[in-house]
Amino acid sequence: MGQTLRFHSQPKIVATSTVAGTKECEGIIGRYVETALSDDMYGESTFEKAECKMLARVIDGAIANGGLGREEVDLIVSGDLLNQIISASFAARDFSVPFLGVYGACSTMAESLAVAAAFIDGGFYHHVVAATGSHFASAERQYRYPLELGCTRPPQAQWTVTGAGGALISDRGDGVKITGATLGKVVDFGVTDVNNMGAAMAPAACDTILTHFRETGLEPEAYDLIVTGDLGALGSRILKDLAWEKGVDITANHVDCGEIIYKVIEDEFQGGSGAGCSAVVLNSYLYSKMMSGALRRILFVATGALLSTVSSGQGESIPCIAHAVVLER
Amino acid sequence: MGQTLRFHSQPKIVATSTVAGTKECEGIIGRYVETALSDDMYGESTFEKAECKMLARVIDGAIANGGLGREEVDLIVSGDLLNQIISASFAARDFSVPFLGVYGACSTMAESLAVAAAFIDGGFYHHVVAATGSHFASAERQYRYPLELGCTRPPQAQWTVTGAGGALISDRGDGVKITGATLGKVVDFGVTDVNNMGAAMAPAACDTILTHFRETGLEPEAYDLIVTGDLGALGSRILKDLAWEKGVDITANHVDCGEIIYKVIEDEFQGGSGAGCSAVVLNSYLYSKMMSGALRRILFVATGALLSTVSSGQGESIPCIAHAVVLER
Repeated sequence: MGQTLRFHSQPKIVATSTVAGTKECEGIIGRYVETALSDDMYGESTFEKAECKMLARVIDGAIANGGLGREEVDLIVSGDLLNQIISASFAARDFSVPFLGVYGACSTMAESLAVAAAFIDGGFYHHVVAATGSHFASAERQYRYPLELGCTRPPQAQWTVTGAGGALISDRGDGVKITGATLGKVVDFGVTDVNNMGAAMAPAACDTILTHFRETGLEPEAYDLIVTGDLGALGSRILKDLAWEKGVDITANHVDCGEIIYKVIEDEFQGGSGAGCSAVVLNSYLYSKMMSGALRRILFVATGALLSTVSSGQGESIPCIAHAVVLER
Repeated sequence: MGQTLRFHSQPKIVATSTVAGTKECEGIIGRYVETALSDDMYGESTFEKAECKMLARVIDGAIANGGLGREEVDLIVSGDLLNQIISASFAARDFSVPFLGVYGACSTMAESLAVAAAFIDGGFYHHVVAATGSHFASAERQYRYPLELGCTRPPQAQWTVTGAGGALISDRGDGVKITGATLGKVVDFGVTDVNNMGAAMAPAACDTILTHFRETGLEPEAYDLIVTGDLGALGSRILKDLAWEKGVDITANHVDCGEIIYKVIEDEFQGGSGAGCSAVVLNSYLYSKMMSGALRRILFVATGALLSTVSSGQGESIPCIAHAVVLER
């Protein structure tokens, strides 16, 4: 049936909620984030507990901002970057709501939105929350090195975003419509540099975007923005090159959440990454721009690198995935 | 809307495929498993690669046994126990098919079946594969201790099953119908003993089972079997006690995949666990009994413990979940 789903009932994102760290709030999203942290520990004793608390906060916030009580929500779809997605599972423990754990690394925001929209469009549920997040310090010590070691970062590395974003998707009410989704395939171009996620993920983003245009018959101009998750500056450039080679020019309207989240003077050359990156940008800045009418139609393509320290340690390359969601106002 | 979904179009499991290790095949499933390993390394150089190969094998097997080509499959829904679900992601890399990664620990078989059935019943897809697996040696070294250390196991511990199971779910053809599902909530009774998963998971299984009966108005007798995933002998007993205290007697028709998978003389006192446990038992033994008409209606309740070594190391208790799927012939 192809990879592209159409949601005929047009489930809507009726409310969102976001939390972001101190560094993140210095950039473009600072004015749009609901909860700006003054302390990246968020009052907790460990980075992992802080990450979990952010996720619980945005799930709770999305429900409250949508004017619902917790007991009215039918399902939470969530995942994160930590081993066994403990942030999502432990956050869900606070809610007496059915829970579907998903894992798509940094593609989780798009994956959870697509699953939520499918469950609503299929008529199974009225109100579903999709949420994800990440924390710089928990990701560093799990995927790379403990911060205490003071390791240097190579220039192709990205900075994992401290932040979380949640969306309440409903079959009623006013909001941003989810009209379709293109679920991605796992794509592996043989990149083995775990510090160069942008290069690894760009081919997956390209595959999903080109599939989307081929299956829908649309041109890139159909969208005000084609927003990728966290390719960063280098990955974003690779994506544009790859698409252009295949005859699709997305240079005019492509932006990458990783590329825009930090201020240029912060010297994060490649920008942000992490499941929280696209989750925060979408659910704060982009959602606000869509609700105000400044953006009417965007293709949101979150990208994920599906590696682990074990797979990389065993010499494997990095399989990646990208899921696309069509958002319309 | 409650936690229980009804799949009116009755998506069907039209084919299954299973792989199991040497120890596993000595028990009841030995005669029903499609691929019985003579070497638990499955010809690979690492445990993780062996686990991934098992998963790829059953995805491929389910598609082939269903008479389809890989290009006819619309979606793979899969997950496993390893960090970042690398077995599922790397297995999906071999297939040019859209992929949804899920994480529900040992509840993954039920979670993936429910998601697959929802995507088919919602009219989005024709053919979806749901699959999961686990490997004793990869789980031991990730969750507990490397085998080389020769650590002893406490009597309440279970043995992670080496095996994988996959199911092809279609909107056409003959097979075992998936008529409903009850998606579980995260339940945490405060158990902190990581060697006593059965005790941790039993309350989650009880919550989902009681919710299922309350929402459907059915009695336990409506099912030939109420099959839990991997509570083991102790957890299974706790579940029966908890349900009985709440006025629901499931003792007459409850079995647990973990309790039945190993031969009694193997001295695995609590039995098996792992995502592969219920996946293998369901897709070999139980599927065969349903297709032959010996079992007509079962409630398949896979249970998952949503901990990580980090969460336990930080003193957290073990949140658990159970998803139930109604299977009818």
